[in-house]
Amino acid sequence: MTTAIASQSLTLTHDLPLDCGQALPAARIAFETYGTLNADKSNAVLVCHALTGDQYVASRHPITGKPGWWERMVGPGRPIDTDRFHVICANVIGSCMGSTGPASVAPDGERYALRFPVITIRDMARALIALINALGIERLHTVVGGSMGGMQALSLAANFPDRAARVLAIATTARHSAQNIAFHEVGRQAIMADPNWRGGSYYDGPSPDAGLAVARMAAHITYLSEAGLTEKFGRRLQDRPDGTKGAKSFGFDADFQVESYLRYQGSGFTQRFDANSYLYITRAMDYFDLAEEHGGRLGDAFAGHAMGKGARFFLISFDSDWLYPTAESRHVVHALNAVGAPVSFVELSAPHGHDSFLLDVPALDRVVRGFLQ
Amino acid sequence: MTTAIASQSLTLTHDLPLDCGQALPAARIAFETYGTLNADKSNAVLVCHALTGDQYVASRHPITGKPGWWERMVGPGRPIDTDRFHVICANVIGSCMGSTGPASVAPDGERYALRFPVITIRDMARALIALINALGIERLHTVVGGSMGGMQALSLAANFPDRAARVLAIATTARHSAQNIAFHEVGRQAIMADPNWRGGSYYDGPSPDAGLAVARMAAHITYLSEAGLTEKFGRRLQDRPDGTKGAKSFGFDADFQVESYLRYQGSGFTQRFDANSYLYITRAMDYFDLAEEHGGRLGDAFAGHAMGKGARFFLISFDSDWLYPTAESRHVVHALNAVGAPVSFVELSAPHGHDSFLLDVPALDRVVRGFLQ
Repeated sequence: MTTAIASQSLTLTHDLPLDCGQALPAARIAFETYGTLNADKSNAVLVCHALTGDQYVASRHPITGKPGWWERMVGPGRPIDTDRFHVICANVIGSCMGSTGPASVAPDGERYALRFPVITIRDMARALIALINALGIERLHTVVGGSMGGMQALSLAANFPDRAARVLAIATTARHSAQNIAFHEVGRQAIMADPNWRGGSYYDGPSPDAGLAVARMAAHITYLSEAGLTEKFGRRLQDRPDGTKGAKSFGFDADFQVESYLRYQGSGFTQRFDANSYLYITRAMDYFDLAEEHGGRLGDAFAGHAMGKGARFFLISFDSDWLYPTAESRHVVHALNAVGAPVSFVELSAPHGHDSFLLDVPALDRVVRGFLQ
Repeated sequence: MTTAIASQSLTLTHDLPLDCGQALPAARIAFETYGTLNADKSNAVLVCHALTGDQYVASRHPITGKPGWWERMVGPGRPIDTDRFHVICANVIGSCMGSTGPASVAPDGERYALRFPVITIRDMARALIALINALGIERLHTVVGGSMGGMQALSLAANFPDRAARVLAIATTARHSAQNIAFHEVGRQAIMADPNWRGGSYYDGPSPDAGLAVARMAAHITYLSEAGLTEKFGRRLQDRPDGTKGAKSFGFDADFQVESYLRYQGSGFTQRFDANSYLYITRAMDYFDLAEEHGGRLGDAFAGHAMGKGARFFLISFDSDWLYPTAESRHVVHALNAVGAPVSFVELSAPHGHDSFLLDVPALDRVVRGFLQ
């Protein structure tokens, strides 16, 4: 585990403009950095995190005590080598790990709750740009992210084409599909159906943990492949609390290992995540449509990169990812091709589904290392 | 719409033995019939319904007022032709449309609620056999079903090999996969998280509708294909109640048409279905593993059909069905091949995902008609 420079945060002195038309006053951006920024500030790598991720990319999570979520990728000698790069990872606005979100206190001294403005992926990118501005970084060596992190990387590249030399988008998409939206809507409905949610104003009482756990369970299934679930759990039964080996209870306890695993994922998640943040961030993802933001043609989103004037792009998908399947990455690649932007693309074979970008896929390590050379 | 002979029910005079070791006293089986049973009782077609289906296969649903769920398939001149066949469709035990289930009153005068025994697909088949016994039908012309209906057809064939001459199993599987179980577990957790559920004893108060709606929404996504959802809804926005045409609300109302559709599916479902029945029937499906019931080899489940002594089988899958994909049907076909049972198999191309068996797929009509000749 890498030792991060102690947790840092930036409070913006200007209002952050948002796609909804409002502006966020005094937005706080919590971030971690790893490795040393060089003299000309040309070695900064911005890592963007996924829906339920955070800034602890390569250092211990302060709540769970678990290792950073991408330690296999970020650290000394790792593909994103902190001996060489200055790695920055910031908590997205709307989240709950130190950056301003619905649980934050608004200027009136009360929690925002549902008064927090609905944000977009582009708003997240604006906050990231404000951060690198404050750090004096003109141009990132690389912006990289998987899943929603990849959306931020693409949005940053589209809207701020001069600010990154390389764009690495993994297991992601340029727009949320109807099925993506549908799964998120189930999660939101589960949260909002929890009586503890109370219209989002639950911070002085019990949290809507039951609803949030169901939301997490539903989403978690989409992160894994059918084959991966079968390999990991199949139809194997749990040993029972009374010592009985793997027998059906003919009841509604978790008989199957996969049930127990999901319940554990759901309840563990509620310890570290705010239900309102889950609503806001899933909404931002559902609203994401990079083409629509740029007049309806995805190629136009990348006009700032036309004819090799801008960044080099690299798209990576996984063959078992059914949340953001390879066709979504290919769609982005075609748009970049259409404007003559330099882009590489690879579909990697990995059994873990969408979560492959976080897991042990040696080929991913190799291609990431290669792209950052 | 066909006029059914007025709704009928049978109350068993013997206890129905169950896989859990208990027996169900005085089980009631509600059913509909269509067409006339011939003199030698050789023209009976038993239609088995899916998880949230019912006996109203070709007649108006008494609660929703909607047409029968398979009118395109069952009726005069239809592939399952009621001018020729005597069609029987019974509500499964555990359900809530007249057959004994958790909402029924137990012998002690109180509702069963969670005292209702956990049932299996084989128990459902046992109830169906009790019904055809009572009707004096020695051997069905055909037993047919899609999804959980297909599981019942396969279970009936495996456990009562002399009772059907033809077995038609559509969009189904011989066992629930880890992913299948996972989705059901999300639904069960959503129901059990609803404070109105109260350990299943909610019949004297409000029902856990919010939880049941979330369960239905999550399941509904699995019934449709990604491509089908994209074609039907894509990212199209709802017109807003204030008359604004398809604009984002930057809030948590249903902005996208797919959100509105899912909410409608969820809330409509709670009008006609009992939450405890949803728990019991999903549990039965998750427990279903035809091979495990027969010593671990699926071929052994069909031993009664070895060397052409038993029924003729027909398996149908849909290429866009990711809930019970074609590989699951093929698995059954291979097991039948292994024992020398006569079996046909076709994978149909249809865009609607798992729900294709209920929808407008002319090729399905043709092959069903052909198999029943």
